[in-house]
Amino acid sequence: MLGPRVWSSVRQGLSRALSSTVGGWASGEGRKVDISGIYPPVTTPFTATAEVDYGKLEENLHKLGTFPFRGFVVQGSNGEFPFLTSSERLEVVSRVRQTLPRDKLLLAGSGCESTQATVEMTVSMAQVGADAAMVVTPCYYHGRMNSAALIHHYTKVADLSPIPVVLYSVPANTGLDLPVDAVVTLSQHPNIVGIKDSGGDVTRIGLIVHKTRRQDFQVLAGSAGFLLASYAVGAVGGVCALANVLGAQVCQLERLCLTGQWEDAQKLQHRLIEPNTAVTRRFGIPGLKKTMDWFGYYGGPCRAPLQELSAAQEEALRLDFTSNGWL
Amino acid sequence: MLGPRVWSSVRQGLSRALSSTVGGWASGEGRKVDISGIYPPVTTPFTATAEVDYGKLEENLHKLGTFPFRGFVVQGSNGEFPFLTSSERLEVVSRVRQTLPRDKLLLAGSGCESTQATVEMTVSMAQVGADAAMVVTPCYYHGRMNSAALIHHYTKVADLSPIPVVLYSVPANTGLDLPVDAVVTLSQHPNIVGIKDSGGDVTRIGLIVHKTRRQDFQVLAGSAGFLLASYAVGAVGGVCALANVLGAQVCQLERLCLTGQWEDAQKLQHRLIEPNTAVTRRFGIPGLKKTMDWFGYYGGPCRAPLQELSAAQEEALRLDFTSNGWL
Amino acid sequence: MLGPRVWSSVRQGLSRALSSTVGGWASGEGRKVDISGIYPPVTTPFTATAEVDYGKLEENLHKLGTFPFRGFVVQGSNGEFPFLTSSERLEVVSRVRQTLPRDKLLLAGSGCESTQATVEMTVSMAQVGADAAMVVTPCYYHGRMNSAALIHHYTKVADLSPIPVVLYSVPANTGLDLPVDAVVTLSQHPNIVGIKDSGGDVTRIGLIVHKTRRQDFQVLAGSAGFLLASYAVGAVGGVCALANVLGAQVCQLERLCLTGQWEDAQKLQHRLIEPNTAVTRRFGIPGLKKTMDWFGYYGGPCRAPLQELSAAQEEALRLDFTSNGWL
Amino acid sequence: MLGPRVWSSVRQGLSRALSSTVGGWASGEGRKVDISGIYPPVTTPFTATAEVDYGKLEENLHKLGTFPFRGFVVQGSNGEFPFLTSSERLEVVSRVRQTLPRDKLLLAGSGCESTQATVEMTVSMAQVGADAAMVVTPCYYHGRMNSAALIHHYTKVADLSPIPVVLYSVPANTGLDLPVDAVVTLSQHPNIVGIKDSGGDVTRIGLIVHKTRRQDFQVLAGSAGFLLASYAVGAVGGVCALANVLGAQVCQLERLCLTGQWEDAQKLQHRLIEPNTAVTRRFGIPGLKKTMDWFGYYGGPCRAPLQELSAAQEEALRLDFTSNGWL
Repeated sequence: MLGPRVWSSVRQGLSRALSSTVGGWASGEGRKVDISGIYPPVTTPFTATAEVDYGKLEENLHKLGTFPFRGFVVQGSNGEFPFLTSSERLEVVSRVRQTLPRDKLLLAGSGCESTQATVEMTVSMAQVGADAAMVVTPCYYHGRMNSAALIHHYTKVADLSPIPVVLYSVPANTGLDLPVDAVVTLSQHPNIVGIKDSGGDVTRIGLIVHKTRRQDFQVLAGSAGFLLASYAVGAVGGVCALANVLGAQVCQLERLCLTGQWEDAQKLQHRLIEPNTAVTRRFGIPGLKKTMDWFGYYGGPCRAPLQELSAAQEEALRLDFTSNGWL
Repeated sequence: MLGPRVWSSVRQGLSRALSSTVGGWASGEGRKVDISGIYPPVTTPFTATAEVDYGKLEENLHKLGTFPFRGFVVQGSNGEFPFLTSSERLEVVSRVRQTLPRDKLLLAGSGCESTQATVEMTVSMAQVGADAAMVVTPCYYHGRMNSAALIHHYTKVADLSPIPVVLYSVPANTGLDLPVDAVVTLSQHPNIVGIKDSGGDVTRIGLIVHKTRRQDFQVLAGSAGFLLASYAVGAVGGVCALANVLGAQVCQLERLCLTGQWEDAQKLQHRLIEPNTAVTRRFGIPGLKKTMDWFGYYGGPCRAPLQELSAAQEEALRLDFTSNGWL
Repeated sequence: MLGPRVWSSVRQGLSRALSSTVGGWASGEGRKVDISGIYPPVTTPFTATAEVDYGKLEENLHKLGTFPFRGFVVQGSNGEFPFLTSSERLEVVSRVRQTLPRDKLLLAGSGCESTQATVEMTVSMAQVGADAAMVVTPCYYHGRMNSAALIHHYTKVADLSPIPVVLYSVPANTGLDLPVDAVVTLSQHPNIVGIKDSGGDVTRIGLIVHKTRRQDFQVLAGSAGFLLASYAVGAVGGVCALANVLGAQVCQLERLCLTGQWEDAQKLQHRLIEPNTAVTRRFGIPGLKKTMDWFGYYGGPCRAPLQELSAAQEEALRLDFTSNGWL
Repeated sequence: MLGPRVWSSVRQGLSRALSSTVGGWASGEGRKVDISGIYPPVTTPFTATAEVDYGKLEENLHKLGTFPFRGFVVQGSNGEFPFLTSSERLEVVSRVRQTLPRDKLLLAGSGCESTQATVEMTVSMAQVGADAAMVVTPCYYHGRMNSAALIHHYTKVADLSPIPVVLYSVPANTGLDLPVDAVVTLSQHPNIVGIKDSGGDVTRIGLIVHKTRRQDFQVLAGSAGFLLASYAVGAVGGVCALANVLGAQVCQLERLCLTGQWEDAQKLQHRLIEPNTAVTRRFGIPGLKKTMDWFGYYGGPCRAPLQELSAAQEEALRLDFTSNGWL
């Protein structure tokens, strides 16, 4: 676990960040880092007593490492980040960084409710090796999170982050869609490189691509269910829970889209919709972890209050994979 | 206006339909009618005193007739059908049929709240020349409109309709998404040929295509905002309010999708999103009709309680077209 | 059934209404009609072949006539009005009027989607004997039904109605809450006497009472579940589906509230919540009609697409009554 | 600020709690603690540099101490608890405890996303002097928070808490209504004494009172807007943001309700609705704090990302108070 020394170092880092002028994120020509590609949002394995199981985490990463992912999202919604302490969040990212080959991007979820806590967590994530920070919208006061508030929040975070920032909109969890006008404004920030959009509204995704077309701004689909459609309207990749269990297939779908083999892409996309819904909206992280167990990874239990699936739910989950030929 | 004689004839028609066995919709080989292509949902022109202006309707149709549309939807949501009497609904369809070349499909909205009224209206629509009936979900009691109720409703209508039936799901108006499982069940009915889905959830559209793939069932996107994405996941066309004003462009987008020119398609799709949203969700039929006035058609007033746009709204509407290069 | 002659008479009536100055609704001193009290929204009985069963309607009314109701709502949401033809709507009201003693108020639902149709139906309802018109918000284009549109709609209707108008807001069906500011504006119209509010938001009900306190404007709770609370914040009565089966009890609750016996009122209110939810939100009109059968009234079938309850639902419905001591 | 020593003590306390049998919450006769009455949910004052201003907190409490409140809620939604560190949350409660007279109840918000963190925070809150813990529903994964998950969560917390637990349902923030069946089950736990319900659905509040009537379970209204109505259906008090600025008036409303002066209560309730909405749903904590400044308390800034009101919003806020005679 990270001790007081690490936290102290984090705060020093923050001071440096605050006192420096524009950070190190921009290359000489001002091009933003390329984040295109597929990312599994890795789950956090727990032991039977609900401790983080770092060994299982590394094992999962080694297995996932065989697929041509662009990188990994750590501490996204599927990582159960709201259930981890700050130290655990950092330690998990640190371990993933040590395990990953250097050429794999590590996108670390660093969102917190307050702007200040988000800044601190983002700086810390950079210190433990994250390549970019994926920052979810604050949500508890979502009724007050209008464009002005969100622009203020993300601008502050991006100003002070030593690593590039990826916006993260996931209305199913937050009750809040990051407004398009806020995204467009934020796309002009030199340290904001893109957005992960998990809402599934492809009209919106197309509009964001369109209205940020002069900003070197990149859109990642937040789920495999609308990955093909997102590519079709200009997204450059996806963060897909399903890639934790069907990694080869999601990467194949990416390749089919990028090479213009739309007919085959469509057939593959079709067979991924139900499995994807099953491990996301329908059965959530408990469904994803159960499926990981089936596919040779370590899923294991979730932290409470997330509950295990019932036998009937497990059967329905399995059917969503078997009926599409994946099990 | 249709007199009592026509209504009497309608009821005789219904009797014939009820007493006949399977209708005339199925060709020898049991293939369903091909509805693929682009359709404008035509608006209903009104005079200053809120009478239906059949002359203007014909003028609009003549102008729209120059584009390679597959056909026209009459009495869809954009036709203000809830504001018309039954006689007006039929008369409008009758006039459109007389105006249209025979090779243009006429899809007539025939949905009512009760199953019985929907059956009667569908039969009447057939009698005045509709090629297919587009049947919106009943909505006033949407809290009770589960799959069982909707399957019962549509089965009854399709059983008794002398023309093919197209399902119509438009949650923004009805508060109700026709459930996928109901769609799958209904796709097996010999007289149900497809669905117009206006919800914009492309994951759902892909799933419907996938799960009805053995049923000769056709999906039409219900709006131009997600037309490209819908083609990408297997839709065969679209019913697009925007086609009332940018008919050439929507047809061009169709062609680009069908010929696999996805890059150009994407660019065109992008420029259509804001105009499309403007004439649908953002400003509704008043916005669509105002835009028609700008583009050389007759838009004119809506029936009350729909209100004209304010000057500020009109300006915002215009901006959505000018900023994308269409005005 | 009403023939063409009646309709012609209706239109003549409308002409008279349009040409007259302010209608006959206001007494000399300008006081509005008193609508305080309890009203059952009567159901429309159907035969096994889905014809309106006027005989059963009269029988139900005779039984309900033994309770101290202020009057009856006919063609409210529970009357399945969207499933009736215009002629049926009028005929039902006409029959109820003939059956009711003169001192019972008849509130007739006359709402249609268009303003013009609503005006015509309201005038017709007056001609067949309604004492007041209860006008539901138009709903198909609820996205456009802002305060301006609704104020315009109701003002037009109230201007032309020969009988007083009661606003009717039922968001569970319409997806639309009549905005408080619109209610306040409309409360100043001499021919608008009150509102039936079925939303159940007692803060809103209190606010409406407060902001219309100088307008001689009356609020009726739209359901028995929040009847006591509505009285507590200033409502003067209720339109309660539950009164179709537990008429004595709902009237008793009224009396306890009016005489300040709040403790007993609370106990009674508590026992009515589950039965009320059962015959409204939980099981809808099919639940209400089934319960009517149990309580000695004629419930009978609904018109399609409303479906009968399953055996399991019926059992759950019964439990909501037995567990509260009513069966 | 609390140092490592305090945290270590907290964890020891947790060990004791875990190893002990039933806690000290139940008196000999098994009666639950009486929490009836009015509570302001105190705000957390911040300096211009966003540090917690403990001096201002004490000043506010001294001023609020002149009203006959039953106690104070600390770290409720109005306390900006999601923006505080764990140490700050505890320190604030500790300071409030030291400032309050012993006879005022201190209800401390101790909810976290994970069950384990909530247990730890609850135990810590007890150690710094909280009389009871108010535990908000976990919300980030609200799609998975069904009755089973929530019953498990609260049971665990209540089992291990040395102080009584109050359930806390606030759907506007959490997107989640604690289901009535879960509330009923949890009401049987000896260490769960009540619920603060902020949803405003008085039918639901009445039903909860009714179905827990044998459980010595107490319901607090979560807002002043429906306080009278809640008393009318059996609530025993309220946690009212408005009491931070109109403390005397909210206490007077309580007294009028308890003494059966319903007519005066109604008049007072009416005048509190708009001010209450203004400092809650309409303008949130920024509105509440601004109003505190007007009424002689220290409101001050919120932590980011919450934004200050615009001049126009401030004016609208003021009007909600002046138009009701409070400013």
